[in-house]
Amino acid sequence: MIIKNGVIANSSISFKADIKIENGIISAISQNINDNDGEIIEAEGMYVIPGGIDAHTHMDLDVGIARAVDDFYTGTVAAAFGGTTTIIDHMGFGPKGCSLSHQVGVYHKLAGEKAVIDYGFHGVIQHVNDDILNEMDELIDKEGITSYKIYLTYDYKIEDKDAFRVLEKAKENGIVITVHPENDGVVNYLKLKYKAQNRLTPEYHAKSRPLECEAEAISRMIQMAHMAGDPKLYIVHLSNALGLDIIRQAIDRGQKNIFAETCPQYLFLNEDMYKLPNNEGLKYIMSPPLRSKDNNEKLFSGIEKKYIDVIATDHCPFNFGIEKQMGKDDFTKCPNGAPGVELRLPLMFSEGVMKKRISINDFVEISCHNPAKIFGLDKKGEIAVGFDADIVIIDPNKKINISKNILHENVDYTPYEGFELQGYPVVTISRGEIIVKDNKFLGEKGRGKYIKRKIM
Amino acid sequence: MIIKNGVIANSSISFKADIKIENGIISAISQNINDNDGEIIEAEGMYVIPGGIDAHTHMDLDVGIARAVDDFYTGTVAAAFGGTTTIIDHMGFGPKGCSLSHQVGVYHKLAGEKAVIDYGFHGVIQHVNDDILNEMDELIDKEGITSYKIYLTYDYKIEDKDAFRVLEKAKENGIVITVHPENDGVVNYLKLKYKAQNRLTPEYHAKSRPLECEAEAISRMIQMAHMAGDPKLYIVHLSNALGLDIIRQAIDRGQKNIFAETCPQYLFLNEDMYKLPNNEGLKYIMSPPLRSKDNNEKLFSGIEKKYIDVIATDHCPFNFGIEKQMGKDDFTKCPNGAPGVELRLPLMFSEGVMKKRISINDFVEISCHNPAKIFGLDKKGEIAVGFDADIVIIDPNKKINISKNILHENVDYTPYEGFELQGYPVVTISRGEIIVKDNKFLGEKGRGKYIKRKIM
Amino acid sequence: MIIKNGVIANSSISFKADIKIENGIISAISQNINDNDGEIIEAEGMYVIPGGIDAHTHMDLDVGIARAVDDFYTGTVAAAFGGTTTIIDHMGFGPKGCSLSHQVGVYHKLAGEKAVIDYGFHGVIQHVNDDILNEMDELIDKEGITSYKIYLTYDYKIEDKDAFRVLEKAKENGIVITVHPENDGVVNYLKLKYKAQNRLTPEYHAKSRPLECEAEAISRMIQMAHMAGDPKLYIVHLSNALGLDIIRQAIDRGQKNIFAETCPQYLFLNEDMYKLPNNEGLKYIMSPPLRSKDNNEKLFSGIEKKYIDVIATDHCPFNFGIEKQMGKDDFTKCPNGAPGVELRLPLMFSEGVMKKRISINDFVEISCHNPAKIFGLDKKGEIAVGFDADIVIIDPNKKINISKNILHENVDYTPYEGFELQGYPVVTISRGEIIVKDNKFLGEKGRGKYIKRKIM
Amino acid sequence: MIIKNGVIANSSISFKADIKIENGIISAISQNINDNDGEIIEAEGMYVIPGGIDAHTHMDLDVGIARAVDDFYTGTVAAAFGGTTTIIDHMGFGPKGCSLSHQVGVYHKLAGEKAVIDYGFHGVIQHVNDDILNEMDELIDKEGITSYKIYLTYDYKIEDKDAFRVLEKAKENGIVITVHPENDGVVNYLKLKYKAQNRLTPEYHAKSRPLECEAEAISRMIQMAHMAGDPKLYIVHLSNALGLDIIRQAIDRGQKNIFAETCPQYLFLNEDMYKLPNNEGLKYIMSPPLRSKDNNEKLFSGIEKKYIDVIATDHCPFNFGIEKQMGKDDFTKCPNGAPGVELRLPLMFSEGVMKKRISINDFVEISCHNPAKIFGLDKKGEIAVGFDADIVIIDPNKKINISKNILHENVDYTPYEGFELQGYPVVTISRGEIIVKDNKFLGEKGRGKYIKRKIM
Repeated sequence: MIIKNGVIANSSISFKADIKIENGIISAISQNINDNDGEIIEAEGMYVIPGGIDAHTHMDLDVGIARAVDDFYTGTVAAAFGGTTTIIDHMGFGPKGCSLSHQVGVYHKLAGEKAVIDYGFHGVIQHVNDDILNEMDELIDKEGITSYKIYLTYDYKIEDKDAFRVLEKAKENGIVITVHPENDGVVNYLKLKYKAQNRLTPEYHAKSRPLECEAEAISRMIQMAHMAGDPKLYIVHLSNALGLDIIRQAIDRGQKNIFAETCPQYLFLNEDMYKLPNNEGLKYIMSPPLRSKDNNEKLFSGIEKKYIDVIATDHCPFNFGIEKQMGKDDFTKCPNGAPGVELRLPLMFSEGVMKKRISINDFVEISCHNPAKIFGLDKKGEIAVGFDADIVIIDPNKKINISKNILHENVDYTPYEGFELQGYPVVTISRGEIIVKDNKFLGEKGRGKYIKRKIM
Repeated sequence: MIIKNGVIANSSISFKADIKIENGIISAISQNINDNDGEIIEAEGMYVIPGGIDAHTHMDLDVGIARAVDDFYTGTVAAAFGGTTTIIDHMGFGPKGCSLSHQVGVYHKLAGEKAVIDYGFHGVIQHVNDDILNEMDELIDKEGITSYKIYLTYDYKIEDKDAFRVLEKAKENGIVITVHPENDGVVNYLKLKYKAQNRLTPEYHAKSRPLECEAEAISRMIQMAHMAGDPKLYIVHLSNALGLDIIRQAIDRGQKNIFAETCPQYLFLNEDMYKLPNNEGLKYIMSPPLRSKDNNEKLFSGIEKKYIDVIATDHCPFNFGIEKQMGKDDFTKCPNGAPGVELRLPLMFSEGVMKKRISINDFVEISCHNPAKIFGLDKKGEIAVGFDADIVIIDPNKKINISKNILHENVDYTPYEGFELQGYPVVTISRGEIIVKDNKFLGEKGRGKYIKRKIM
Repeated sequence: MIIKNGVIANSSISFKADIKIENGIISAISQNINDNDGEIIEAEGMYVIPGGIDAHTHMDLDVGIARAVDDFYTGTVAAAFGGTTTIIDHMGFGPKGCSLSHQVGVYHKLAGEKAVIDYGFHGVIQHVNDDILNEMDELIDKEGITSYKIYLTYDYKIEDKDAFRVLEKAKENGIVITVHPENDGVVNYLKLKYKAQNRLTPEYHAKSRPLECEAEAISRMIQMAHMAGDPKLYIVHLSNALGLDIIRQAIDRGQKNIFAETCPQYLFLNEDMYKLPNNEGLKYIMSPPLRSKDNNEKLFSGIEKKYIDVIATDHCPFNFGIEKQMGKDDFTKCPNGAPGVELRLPLMFSEGVMKKRISINDFVEISCHNPAKIFGLDKKGEIAVGFDADIVIIDPNKKINISKNILHENVDYTPYEGFELQGYPVVTISRGEIIVKDNKFLGEKGRGKYIKRKIM
Repeated sequence: MIIKNGVIANSSISFKADIKIENGIISAISQNINDNDGEIIEAEGMYVIPGGIDAHTHMDLDVGIARAVDDFYTGTVAAAFGGTTTIIDHMGFGPKGCSLSHQVGVYHKLAGEKAVIDYGFHGVIQHVNDDILNEMDELIDKEGITSYKIYLTYDYKIEDKDAFRVLEKAKENGIVITVHPENDGVVNYLKLKYKAQNRLTPEYHAKSRPLECEAEAISRMIQMAHMAGDPKLYIVHLSNALGLDIIRQAIDRGQKNIFAETCPQYLFLNEDMYKLPNNEGLKYIMSPPLRSKDNNEKLFSGIEKKYIDVIATDHCPFNFGIEKQMGKDDFTKCPNGAPGVELRLPLMFSEGVMKKRISINDFVEISCHNPAKIFGLDKKGEIAVGFDADIVIIDPNKKINISKNILHENVDYTPYEGFELQGYPVVTISRGEIIVKDNKFLGEKGRGKYIKRKIM
């Protein structure tokens, strides 16, 4: 297959050249490749970028009271339509006390016959003991699991002592620790307090999780990481500017191994949405919650200045008409999460690149290159010879008015309803195979491959 | 009584005038007071300052494995020799689940017949529930207890949720929350780790309590205080510059109700002392531990720039020859604490004022005025009409070579052995009564009064 | 004279006591002074504060195209009504090349027979050479001139090299260098540019002096001061938050000898006023110009956090109906300056103390104590025995609706028209003499004394 | 030509592939290119990087009292040996009042028949008027001059007003303004002062140019740039951490168009060298001067954190035995400058990449990619199809002990004598032509092409 005449945009530069793909691999980047045998994709006037990598999804996640409504099939199909060719899914919790491998097994089953794009799994640490720490080592080679998530809140909240042990282990073996940072004690106290006061509308979801809870926990993790020798620490779904300041200052003090992720919802949506009529606020119940417009703006600046490394989605959809209604009288009963996997690239391209806030190369950096680099996908994230032929073609002239009915996520709403976007992915290629074209999905269910990731 | 011809130094200005004392109160400040009846104290060439207030002592403290060797008699006598006329003692823990009043009762007994200078008690919160929170309100009027301490580590560690409740209560009733900030999880993990590695010498005491443990906990408290509406939060015994930075930034963001205390040991002693031969490092086992010289310097700058409000001592002495030897083979068994109540003013005067790092007025501010202002001693901390006649006369020309045998603390060593000081208190007056003069203690045991403090 | 029953408020504390005044000096502060001979001033329910010190006025200033319309009589009478008992006037420029003494002579003549309150003069440096530098030394003892102003813009702009020489001299002799910081090159370029574009309304006055011009010059002076060994550097009329940040950072780096002044107009008025109809914007033409509301707010925070040391006025009035009209078709022709000397204390008391942004003691600190301390008025700025009996009584219950016709400044408008203030000075005492009472001026023209200031 | 089996390192990623070069252009990057006709360069075990770009040289510079001893031939040969394939030379001053074109003409003559690698010229602005500003526009298309330098010190010092006009013009036409930032007034004053004190040894060169002079001028330029609408501003030869802080803060405030350059001498050499015996300090006389080791360290951190964008050299050599001796009795008579063009890449590779402070990709970014991107070399700085085949092969195993006699700069010393480097360029290719191989120069004099640069 040959992609001709497009502007190839990598994380550092853009240039016009043709791309030749053989056996799912980019075999050549050249001027004027002509090959009588291969399929030709004409990309004149288009950007040709590395396939998007969404480092934070929750397909088919069991949250106890409900299950995320996109499974690895519907979710990855939606991802593909949006120009994402790899996801790294955060595995859900297993039974209490289970081994790390247990969930890996569960997730191979969930994803194996369904995913249509390549995928990896972030491990999850539910409890800490010597066995778990040893298993972290083992799964590097065995399963290519080179990142683990810890939660500082929720049911499998990790205590500081255990978080510290995990960080020490990470320092030793080079894995990345990702963290959901919120102060569990205060969040739970506020939830109960509002409940006792019968303040149960969606806006109290946000009020029960103030940004200081998040900032505090970020600071705590950063200090613990420093004491542990500065292993790689990755802050997921950063939602506020105070946390960003704390991260920036730590980097300035010399903690180079801190990475930060934010998501489109924290850039383009805000806390006013919790007050929408008809309980529509339920659509936006996620943790951390949406913040003020001022925080939106400062986070986007953080991207421009490259203090934020990665754009992911935390994709975890529930139907507004069904699951989300569990919270209609009590926000604490509403499953947390929202869809987003399909619109990550379109939103960032339209709002970032087309509005000239970031360059096309910066867009590739945060959407494709950095997630690959940080999480050990050593053959993805750039258009380079020898790399997987995960390639997306973006038409900068295509205008789309977002509404639920043009999307492929298996959920009854999109938080971005009514957004008018300029520029959209039109062809998605995964390991040399066109899987989306002419607005049709052409891939086969289960064609996605599990990727064993490297220590970077 | 009349004090004549001295230079009166308050926290803002110095001026030459005479002071008349009636009924233990400063009744007049005038030029040339002549009174045939009263006793005359000649202070020509001397500084006349408000009596020192040590806002952090632990007299007769029961630490479980031992008891601090200065009781309210020996400790306050030593304080008086050093120019301190008021202490606010941090009460120790009572039996599990006890009421707040319980310890107040205990402490009235400990202090009532012994203290020779005025004293107050900081309450201590061992557990949190509605009864405790209500009792906080009650004890304001009943006992004048307007500040409480919480510990984020040790046996009665307060969980974040409970710390938050206490802060909310403080916002409501105006009391000051003082906090011992260290990350309990990491400290305990490191202690056990070093123990398992048989690293048991005093320097591992310091290594088991890295400054990041302290800085993290300061950040956590600051964020929680902000969420609670910014009640008065007072950081005790700040030992490091990273924590100071966090405090400074919070103040700059608008959190005006944050106060910080440091102690002479964190300004003049350093971590190298843990490696002294003959296990002398045991003398310096305290928490937080001594830090690097660089931290000494930056903390002193914090005083100069007024980010640090108060100099206290955390006086909590154990004999090197007896109690401290419990830790001779294992630092974890050594009682924590060191003496200091007698030398606070001499050290700060000599190193600060005489070396021109701070003015005499700044010295009064951090040693006398600020502790009074922050902790509700509304008739102490300045030389002003209507204020208690707690007055100290300092001779700036007196040189003292510090050694244990010239001190009055009931303990067999001083951490400041060999320090050469310029300037020393020569007369101490408490409520109009000369209690130290000509290097003799003249007061009566038990003469000190308990001070009910105000909400400021 | 005895002032009875008031709450004496100094920069550090407040307390209730009586004050006895003899020979213009505070001779005693006591409980219940009873003296049959003296006059008694009853101050029950009132604050008794040290007389205000305005460290930045321009009485009778010749600005070339006009003369400030308050002379030392009308200006100091207005000051007295507003609770100010001392001014330090910034002398205007003399003939080109004149000695420092020349202007001192001129100003003694201007003020000597007119001023009704005490006054000092800031020297002004128009050019720099060895003679001028030597004269700086001489005038310390001879005239008590211990501060000099340099202008980085205007006709007698001081070049960097010369500013540096002045700073080196100040390091040597201990005087304070005050600076008007604006980038001359850019300001003049922008003025000419707007003129060429026929943009001549008052708002272009502000646009021709962007805050970055001021911030740049502050940074430049701070760096030069540091190279000169950190003499005392005092930034006059700080108008913006960026400049404040630069000052704060320098202090944090260790430059303790930097002081900052702001004025009520930069706290309570803003740039929108330049667009008022009927050319009323001319009333606010001053340099630096008014800034945004956001800057107002951040500067007030700077006061709360004590990065700003002094509140002065830059009082320099011109009639709106006469002199200001010179600029009606061309802002560049409008004399720069506005009245303010009368309302400094009332504004700060009402907006600061009564609205609980600063304490009464902080109010005294920035309005009375700090100007005295920084500029060497060693017997003013506090209520203390031996100090000048410059005392003001403030009635916190008096409400005043500000309008031109209740003020005593000799000018046809006030920028604060319509402000509703809570609390107002009701008695003003200068060196023991009541000069304002019952809203009447009781002093004699020329009664004010010239104050030789000290090196502090 | 084909380069086989090397690890291609671009600014974002490294990958193994072959490179095909046709007509001086990279025509293909592919796996296993086999071509019977072309020359094959085997690069197994080597890094294959884009040719280095030195954005700051002064070949053949006339400094009035002397002429830099490398002309465009010797200088570019040395550059080629060190892996640099493009220089952007800063043109020297022409006759007073000359047009911008004048110097372009002069420099085409200096370089045209001599340069062996490609080159561009930074314009220089000696004076500012409408003609000059118009000429800036004209020379964009005509000569591809898209950057100009202004000097804030030296003979053609640009006044602030004129600097501001230049910045306004740059905002309009998109060119980059590079600035030599030092406070002229203070530098000259200090020089004369030390001269008058007969302090004439090399260390007084450094003392006469304190880092605050540089930091001040950086701050001034940054504020002026902001007022001018934030055109591209490029700080040359940043030597100190205070200046870096100022830059970082401006970027944090939102000034994204600020770029910073440092040079190896400010990373690896320090002010102690001015005190070397035998007047060897003369070797290091350059402006700004070498700073403390602490500054070395902080600048390197600035590279790690990407606040510094470019590594250049300010190559401007004079023989120690000849020209530098002009300053032997008086540092002010010593020509300023030092050699460096040959060792830029080796130093950064050895100290940065091999010592793991920066990645190979970061190395390419600051040495090749960023200079191209900032200065409009749109076909250089990366290894990409369609880009110029400027390629350097680095052998990471080659160890070199630096001494003058192995270098090719036409000067009698190297400041890096005795440095032991790990890794060195072994093949240099310029537009497809091998010009250095086997430690021999193979190119032809004058083969270098002048590059018309683009507006980026």
